[in-house]
Amino acid sequence: MPLATPAGYRALDEATLAAYLETVPTIAGRLGGAAADWRVAEVGDGNLNLVFLVEGPNDGVCVKQALPYVRLVGDGWPLPLERAWFEHEATLIQARHAAERLPAILHYDPQLYLIAMQRLAPHIIMRRGMIAGTVYPAFVDHMVEYTANALYFTSDLALRAGEKKRLVAQFAGNTELCKITEDLIFTDPYRIAELNRWTSPELDDVALAIRGDDGLKRAVSLLKLKFLSRGEALLHGDLHTGSIMVTATDTKVIDPEFAFFGPMGFDVGKLIGNLLLSYFSQAGHEQEAGERDDYRAWITATIERFWNGFERRFIELWLANRTGDAFPADLFENADTEGSDAGRRSLGQAQHIFMRELFEDCLGYAGCSMIRRILGLAHNIDMEWIEDQGRRAACERRTLGLAVDLVKQARQIPSIEAVTAKAAALQAAA
Amino acid sequence: MPLATPAGYRALDEATLAAYLETVPTIAGRLGGAAADWRVAEVGDGNLNLVFLVEGPNDGVCVKQALPYVRLVGDGWPLPLERAWFEHEATLIQARHAAERLPAILHYDPQLYLIAMQRLAPHIIMRRGMIAGTVYPAFVDHMVEYTANALYFTSDLALRAGEKKRLVAQFAGNTELCKITEDLIFTDPYRIAELNRWTSPELDDVALAIRGDDGLKRAVSLLKLKFLSRGEALLHGDLHTGSIMVTATDTKVIDPEFAFFGPMGFDVGKLIGNLLLSYFSQAGHEQEAGERDDYRAWITATIERFWNGFERRFIELWLANRTGDAFPADLFENADTEGSDAGRRSLGQAQHIFMRELFEDCLGYAGCSMIRRILGLAHNIDMEWIEDQGRRAACERRTLGLAVDLVKQARQIPSIEAVTAKAAALQAAA
Repeated sequence: MPLATPAGYRALDEATLAAYLETVPTIAGRLGGAAADWRVAEVGDGNLNLVFLVEGPNDGVCVKQALPYVRLVGDGWPLPLERAWFEHEATLIQARHAAERLPAILHYDPQLYLIAMQRLAPHIIMRRGMIAGTVYPAFVDHMVEYTANALYFTSDLALRAGEKKRLVAQFAGNTELCKITEDLIFTDPYRIAELNRWTSPELDDVALAIRGDDGLKRAVSLLKLKFLSRGEALLHGDLHTGSIMVTATDTKVIDPEFAFFGPMGFDVGKLIGNLLLSYFSQAGHEQEAGERDDYRAWITATIERFWNGFERRFIELWLANRTGDAFPADLFENADTEGSDAGRRSLGQAQHIFMRELFEDCLGYAGCSMIRRILGLAHNIDMEWIEDQGRRAACERRTLGLAVDLVKQARQIPSIEAVTAKAAALQAAA
Repeated sequence: MPLATPAGYRALDEATLAAYLETVPTIAGRLGGAAADWRVAEVGDGNLNLVFLVEGPNDGVCVKQALPYVRLVGDGWPLPLERAWFEHEATLIQARHAAERLPAILHYDPQLYLIAMQRLAPHIIMRRGMIAGTVYPAFVDHMVEYTANALYFTSDLALRAGEKKRLVAQFAGNTELCKITEDLIFTDPYRIAELNRWTSPELDDVALAIRGDDGLKRAVSLLKLKFLSRGEALLHGDLHTGSIMVTATDTKVIDPEFAFFGPMGFDVGKLIGNLLLSYFSQAGHEQEAGERDDYRAWITATIERFWNGFERRFIELWLANRTGDAFPADLFENADTEGSDAGRRSLGQAQHIFMRELFEDCLGYAGCSMIRRILGLAHNIDMEWIEDQGRRAACERRTLGLAVDLVKQARQIPSIEAVTAKAAALQAAA
């Protein structure tokens, strides 16, 4: 028996989509011609939704429709259609501050839980490009700008408390998508869970060791508690290399359906974790040992430039946009004391404390994101496409080695360069 | 021109209240007799609302009605009537876990924003009792139970994530009451603000020094950021000795209209800060120096027993009620590893980390709560009732001395006994 859905909802397919789009003038006009002239292909390779590419005589569009269940698992795992609404809302909010990094939204249908957006071409999913060893020179500056803007401008540093609370309340409704993260990232990989899988038997020992590592589980549980309770900013919520589409000169962030108010380190850390996972996967894609050395060096440089750039840009935004209820400007530039230089220095120290805590969160979430992709339900093609199981396991084992360190040692890691050095040392020992 | 109010709302007075209550059978029945037999007195001495005591032949009730403005300031400072709804909702939630510590709610009128509750007799506001030097032997155990239960059972340790997010969204609407705290506690005392006042000229120097203390303002601003962004549990939001009614054997917490999801340390710290403020005010109420020594010793012992009891009770609840999405039980008692003892030890370490952070938050919020009562808009009768301005200023100066330490040195303070020792040393130097 199919899952119950609201009146008016029906899942579209390649045959019915064109007829639907013909009724939407902005889309039909953009495509040009008539429905009979449009080529429709369902291309969803994600875990949750239907994704169609539609090509008309003039232009193309991308259409994303939520299904009432998790596509990866089937209708045994229901999932609210409302995630399309949250994606649409989050995109509108982020577009105020980072419009160039997002696909343009062309149409939203609240009954079909369907979003039509700009077709990104010739963009590809960044993860695929990285598997092929492709360098993306524009990526790091674009992602610095996206993350710093999207997080800063939805934080208490930029928003008045009333507006922030209104948004927190709105996105608190996205609870079932958050629950996926809570369970699949912070819980299941650390216990026996039916949906877990890993490269077996090669990684059986490390999977067992991780399930028995009480210090690791303690650190992961504290990170989970932060994820549950700290509404620092509107997160993308699933910011990995599979949610980024790239060309040599453009970068677009897609799929913010996990959006909610959470700890900023989660977005930044998930991205870094996925870059590190790609780093360790490169050995599995080499024809000859060492042929991806330059590419690995590009990845570590990208990780360093990303974090350092994010930190710098976030503080620039903080200094230039003191519009929120946190850290009101006149507290540190007090007219009746001579301390405006001292005030600026003190604000600088507060920013240092703030960014250090964010960095530690980021490392912890990076580590969790790496572990779940190797021991949990959802794996990445970075590793899955390494056909030789022994080679894959070796790449995955190195990934886990760094990941566990990031989670457990976050407070002792002085800088992002210390992270990339650890990665390089693990790789060199291979 | 009076402020606009919703249809059906009218502020009651001593004359119109009885006629209204006659239409509410549960209240009329409880009072006994008829409206003509009831004595009504408006007794609100708080800052925001109307409060009536109604005595009938059989029993009494207390009626609290929200006004559309801040009573302390007048209709130039509008304030949403909905705070009565939040107070009612918060009371219902807390009553699930700490019913004996709350007045029984008898009736709620959503149109009049009016709550009728059990009349507490012979209870008095604890602050008044402390000014008189009265010991309350039951207070500490009761408040340990209230704070531990109210905070634990609304945290991610006890609630499933979906239920928690639903409640967070609900109380996010109480934004204007939160804003009072944000402005009056965390901002105004640290800058020139029209509503500030202090004992002048005696404290002019310390008020100026505090406005110029960049390290202090940095620490306060980080505490404000936590207040804005960390939805750890449903707080009372204004838990001071003026929100507690006592007898020798009973303790009731009233007035949770500031309720919202915030950092747990705020409730616990505000209470400790107000106890410390009472401690330093005692010298101003002595007829002879030293006559309140025993009472001061009772206050410091109470503060120690309160924090230590809270910590112990919170962890007991944590171990016995692992029903939330944070720290799921099976993660630390994993069936396939032999580590259940090790798991319990690790959970114990996590609890230690958690409680230490909560303690530091508590100290910081205690300090902020003390400073705002001496340099900000709303003062306490603990100090205000000291008629001799010089003596009052001396008490207040000692209070500020400890408060600034608590905020700036929280990370270096090892225990609650170190706090009371600092207080005693300041008092002894007097």
